[in-house]
Amino acid sequence: MKPTSNKYLLDPQYAQALDAEDRLARFRQEFVIDDPGLIYLDGNSLGRLPRRSRVLIQDYVDRQWGQRLIRGWGEGWLELAQHIGDKIAGLVGAQPGEVVVAESTSTNLFKLAVAALKARPGRSKIVTDDLNFPSDLYIFQGIVELLGGGHRLEIVSSPDGIHGPLEGLAAAIDDDTALVSLSHTAFKSAYTYDMAAVTALAHRAGALTLWDLSHSAGAVPVDLNGANADLAVGCSYKYLNGGPGAPAFLYVRRDLQASLRNPISGWYSQAAPFDFGLEYQPAAGLRRMLTGTPPVLALAAIEPGIDLLLAAGMDHLRAKSVQQSEYLIALVDAVLQPLGFQLNSPRDAARRGSHISIGHPEGWRINRALIEQQQVLPDFRAPDNIRLGITPLYTTFDEIRQAVQRLRAVVEERRYEQYSLERSAVT
Amino acid sequence: MKPTSNKYLLDPQYAQALDAEDRLARFRQEFVIDDPGLIYLDGNSLGRLPRRSRVLIQDYVDRQWGQRLIRGWGEGWLELAQHIGDKIAGLVGAQPGEVVVAESTSTNLFKLAVAALKARPGRSKIVTDDLNFPSDLYIFQGIVELLGGGHRLEIVSSPDGIHGPLEGLAAAIDDDTALVSLSHTAFKSAYTYDMAAVTALAHRAGALTLWDLSHSAGAVPVDLNGANADLAVGCSYKYLNGGPGAPAFLYVRRDLQASLRNPISGWYSQAAPFDFGLEYQPAAGLRRMLTGTPPVLALAAIEPGIDLLLAAGMDHLRAKSVQQSEYLIALVDAVLQPLGFQLNSPRDAARRGSHISIGHPEGWRINRALIEQQQVLPDFRAPDNIRLGITPLYTTFDEIRQAVQRLRAVVEERRYEQYSLERSAVT
Repeated sequence: MKPTSNKYLLDPQYAQALDAEDRLARFRQEFVIDDPGLIYLDGNSLGRLPRRSRVLIQDYVDRQWGQRLIRGWGEGWLELAQHIGDKIAGLVGAQPGEVVVAESTSTNLFKLAVAALKARPGRSKIVTDDLNFPSDLYIFQGIVELLGGGHRLEIVSSPDGIHGPLEGLAAAIDDDTALVSLSHTAFKSAYTYDMAAVTALAHRAGALTLWDLSHSAGAVPVDLNGANADLAVGCSYKYLNGGPGAPAFLYVRRDLQASLRNPISGWYSQAAPFDFGLEYQPAAGLRRMLTGTPPVLALAAIEPGIDLLLAAGMDHLRAKSVQQSEYLIALVDAVLQPLGFQLNSPRDAARRGSHISIGHPEGWRINRALIEQQQVLPDFRAPDNIRLGITPLYTTFDEIRQAVQRLRAVVEERRYEQYSLERSAVT
Repeated sequence: MKPTSNKYLLDPQYAQALDAEDRLARFRQEFVIDDPGLIYLDGNSLGRLPRRSRVLIQDYVDRQWGQRLIRGWGEGWLELAQHIGDKIAGLVGAQPGEVVVAESTSTNLFKLAVAALKARPGRSKIVTDDLNFPSDLYIFQGIVELLGGGHRLEIVSSPDGIHGPLEGLAAAIDDDTALVSLSHTAFKSAYTYDMAAVTALAHRAGALTLWDLSHSAGAVPVDLNGANADLAVGCSYKYLNGGPGAPAFLYVRRDLQASLRNPISGWYSQAAPFDFGLEYQPAAGLRRMLTGTPPVLALAAIEPGIDLLLAAGMDHLRAKSVQQSEYLIALVDAVLQPLGFQLNSPRDAARRGSHISIGHPEGWRINRALIEQQQVLPDFRAPDNIRLGITPLYTTFDEIRQAVQRLRAVVEERRYEQYSLERSAVT
C-alpha cells in the first residue's frame, strides 16, 4: 500500500493498515509497554525493556548473586562478556571471537585508538569528522595530548551538517594518517557511511579504521568483515535494548588481534589471571582487550534484546526501518515543512540510519511540549534538532502518524510558548 | 567473655554466646540468606545480597527503565554516580565531592596513575610492592610501556610474603619517584599499611600516593583525609556488597582535582556534555575524572550495601571484625596449626584487614573439599592460601567455629584426597 496523495498520510486507517501488514509486529509484544498512550521515539537513545530481561535480571539477582554467590563466576559470569559478544558479532557482520562486551564506549574507543596509533609508528594523524559523537572527539583530543610526539587530530567538516564529508576525508587521509575513526551512523543527522568505501580509502593510505557503531548496530545492517574494517566500538543501550548505560562492545578483526597492545592492561586481559603472577602476559585472542571485572547485572541484561534482533533478522528490520522512515519523511514534507520544520537527515535511505532529525527554530520548546503535554518522547540535540528514533522491533506506523499529528498541534496552536527558552542539561 | 583455655574455642555454646552479645547481629537479617547451612566466608570477594537491593533493582528495571524510559536520566540517573560516591566518601574518610563511582577499578587506576605521572613531570618512577593486587601491577606495566620516556615501575618485595616492605619502600621512594601506589590492605595476607605514615614518606620525597582500597573499604576504618592521601581507587563488590562486578570508585583529594588531567576524557568528564561542543573542556571538580555513561542497573545496586555499613558504623564493624579475626586466629593456632596449616596473615590486628589467610601444602584440594562437601565457601589464592573473609555485617562467631570444625574434619579424615591436583581457572 503506497500513498497516492498526501491526504492519506495522516489517515489512521492508512497507518493501521501498514501495521496490519507488518510481519515484525509480533515483536512489540516482547517488550514491556505498560502505557499505551505513550509514543516512544527515543529507542535510539535508550531501547525499551524486553520482557525477558526482567525475568533474567531477577534470576541474576535472586538466584545467582543471592544464592550461588561467588560460585557464579564459575557458572557463567566469567565467560558472559565473550558469550554476549559472540551474539553481537552476528548482528554486525563479525565472527565469534571478534566482539566482546566491556567497559564504556569511550573507554573502548580509547583502548583501540591508542593501540592503533602504536601499531602505526611514524604516523601522527587521527582523521575524523564533525558529525562524530563529541565524546569520540574528546577521547581523541585526550590521546593526542597524552601521547604527544606530534600526534594530532584532524576534524573534517561536513559540507552541510547532514552528510559525511567524503571529499574532505579523501583529501585528509594521507601517508601520515594512522587512524580514520568515524561514527558509522551520525548521532544527529543519521548520515551513514559506506563502511567498505571509507575503509578501502584508509587502507590505500596505510591507515587503520575504527568505527563507532553506537547508532548503527541493531539499526542498520553492518558488515564489518565484508568491509574489511579493522576496529569498532559501540554501545548496547540504544537499538540493542541493553538497559540504561549498559556496557559497551568492541571489535577487533581477528588477524589484527595478536599484534595490538591494550594500553589499559588489567587482569581481565591477562593470559592466566587466576595465577596472580606479577608479570603481565597478554591473553591470546580478543580477551587481551578487556580490562577490569565486568558489571555482571548490567552485562547480563544485554542479552535478551540482542536475541530479539537476531530472531527478527537485520534485513527484515532494515526493510521495516526504511519503510517507516520514508513514511515519516513524507509526513515531515507534507505536514511539518509548512510549519517551519526542515529535514536534517539524508533523503537517500541508503545513506541514512534509523532515526530522523527535524530542525525548527523553536525546536527546544516544541520538544518540551511533546514530552510534557503530548505523551511523545523524542529527544533533542542542540542547536534545534528533534530526533525521532525508529526502532522497528516495536515502533508502529500509527505511532509515527500520531506523533506527527501531535507535533503539528503543538506548533499550530503554539502550545510550546508556555515553556522557558532556558535549556536544562538533560533532554 | 574470653576463652580461658583452648577447649572453649570449639564449644558451640561459647561461640553462640559471643553471637548473643553481638550488637551488630541484627544486620544479618538485612541480607538474603536462604541457605542457613551454607557458611559464607567469601564476602571479601563478593558481598552478600542486601534485601533492599532486590527491591531497588526491581524498581530500576520495572518502573525506571520499563516506564520512565529515557526520562530516567533527568530523574536521578545522571547524578547517581556522584550521589553514591558521596556516601562512599563517608566510609573512607573523605568529603562529598571527593569520591565518585565509575568504570572498573583497573580503569580508574589507569586514569589516576597517568594523571599523577603527568602531574610530576621529570620524575620517572612508580613504586609499588609485590603484595599489591596483580591487576594493579599489570596496569602500571602498561602505563610504563605506553608513556615510554624512561618511566619505570619498581616493585619492592615483601620480606616474608605477608608484611609490607616498609624498609624497602623507604629506600625506593626517592626524588625520581612520581607515584607510590599500594593496596591499603593486601589481597592475600590482609596486611594493612599505615596510610598516614606511607603517605608522609611519599610526600617528603615529593611523590603522590594512590591507594587501592578494594580490600579495605568497608572492612577497616579508612581515613583518606586524615592521612592526607592524594588519590585512591576501590571496588564495590567486596565489603561494600554492591553485586558481582559492580562499578568501582575513585577518590581525588579536593585541592588536587583542578590540576589533574583525565587521560580517558569521555563526555561524562566534559564541562557541558549536553551542549555537544566539539572542543573538550574538562568539568570542574571530580566529574572531570569520569569517562563514559555508567551502567545504571549495576550502579544503583551498590547503594543499599553502603547504607548498611554507614548505619552499622565503621568503628563498630571494625571492633567486631577484630574480635572475630582474633577468635579465628586462636582456632587456627589451637586446631589447625597441628594439622599443617600456617597463618599467612599478620598477627598484629592493627596491621590486618578483615580476612585471614591460612596456608597448607594441600590448600587447593582442601579448599575444593570445603566447597563441594562441607558447605563452606572461602576462596583460594595461589600457591596454597585459603582465604577466610570476615564480614561483620553478617558473619557469625558460630559460623567461624563451624568452618574450622569442618576444615579439621576435611584434613583429619583426608577427605580432600578424592580431588584432582589439577587446578581450574576460577576458584
